[in-house]
Amino acid sequence: PPGRKVLIVYAHQEPKSLNGSLKRVAVEELSKQGCSVTVSDLYAMQFEPRATRNDIVGCLHNSEEFNYGVETWEAYKRGGLSNDLIEEQKKVKEADLLIFQFPLYWFSMPAIMKGWMDRVLVQGFAHEFPNCYDSGLLQNKLALFSFTTGGSKEIYTKGGISGDIRYLLWPMQHGIMHFCGVRVLAPHICFAPEYVSEEEREEMLIAWAQRLKTLWKEEPINCSPEWYFE
Amino acid sequence: PPGRKVLIVYAHQEPKSLNGSLKRVAVEELSKQGCSVTVSDLYAMQFEPRATRNDIVGCLHNSEEFNYGVETWEAYKRGGLSNDLIEEQKKVKEADLLIFQFPLYWFSMPAIMKGWMDRVLVQGFAHEFPNCYDSGLLQNKLALFSFTTGGSKEIYTKGGISGDIRYLLWPMQHGIMHFCGVRVLAPHICFAPEYVSEEEREEMLIAWAQRLKTLWKEEPINCSPEWYFE
Repeated sequence: PPGRKVLIVYAHQEPKSLNGSLKRVAVEELSKQGCSVTVSDLYAMQFEPRATRNDIVGCLHNSEEFNYGVETWEAYKRGGLSNDLIEEQKKVKEADLLIFQFPLYWFSMPAIMKGWMDRVLVQGFAHEFPNCYDSGLLQNKLALFSFTTGGSKEIYTKGGISGDIRYLLWPMQHGIMHFCGVRVLAPHICFAPEYVSEEEREEMLIAWAQRLKTLWKEEPINCSPEWYFE
Repeated sequence: PPGRKVLIVYAHQEPKSLNGSLKRVAVEELSKQGCSVTVSDLYAMQFEPRATRNDIVGCLHNSEEFNYGVETWEAYKRGGLSNDLIEEQKKVKEADLLIFQFPLYWFSMPAIMKGWMDRVLVQGFAHEFPNCYDSGLLQNKLALFSFTTGGSKEIYTKGGISGDIRYLLWPMQHGIMHFCGVRVLAPHICFAPEYVSEEEREEMLIAWAQRLKTLWKEEPINCSPEWYFE
């Protein structure tokens, strides 16, 4: 609906890829709805995935023994995080919905996107004990993981060699998003686009656009072990 | 035993950290046994986690549409991967045992280590359809995930808010290592070292050294859904 803000965190090297097209479709459809859409195109930004001392501007809280979690927490509180992190946190703060668009790499997100999670969602900003899970600091936001796989739908089932696809969503949806208080919409998965016809890939794009039309009416999943492991 | 080769892939910024000490203990104990131990100290190496075109030396197989999986596969076959990847692959190839030492970041490994997985374990080297899982290309190797957590042991249980710790091991142990044919030893987990006494941290180091003394007699876990989800 008009006025809603969406941040798409996007991790693919190639604009012509299906991931690139899925991202474009989302920008178009959500813009058409009157949403304001921002994209963090991680490879294009050459986003830094490594969690290092460079993320803290100025002096360290404890320069004797570097503790990334403590240092970024302290830096956040005094406004001393590096500019790229401040920028991303601004985008997250404003967003009603976060869409993560990526190809599945090794049962998870590509390292460049994992680095976004590691570095942007710092203590103080996204969580701060005891404000985690249902009382995480990013409440009233939604997240959606939209990704492509190499393997077919059949191998990602309970009896399949790679197990139920929900198993691998646990760390991302529950461990990260739910931990920060974000409610999670059902994932959007395009299985094995490299092994289907151009027509079927086109249908994948249409299906995504269709889903986005009624996205704001969707209920979040029940992000508890039952959803993942029955 | 004498002659065995071990690669420790290590991801912590601070040598004085518990992770740094755990790494040092492993180097010492395994060297004492006569093993030859190599360490990839990812932060010290400023290891690149991003999967980009830079990983391929020379011309691309398809310069019209960049596909990282295809390009690295092709580059591997013609010896055209970047030098940092060739170096890491050499270490992996020689190793009988891979130890991954890291602090748990967001229910997973830090991005810098995920980048090591994404970039080093390319098709052709670590797997090549249908050579995956039990017939993966890195057979006859063992892997062990050794990590520290922020949260306590209690929260990582079936009834705990963060779920059984085994849930989050699925993508790493099954999705990556098992996929490449590597057999997996039980993980080594130090829970919440930041919240225990100096003495207890010392005991954690002793326990790790003790375990390493008889490590070569351990049987791999049964890396199937049952182990993870019962």
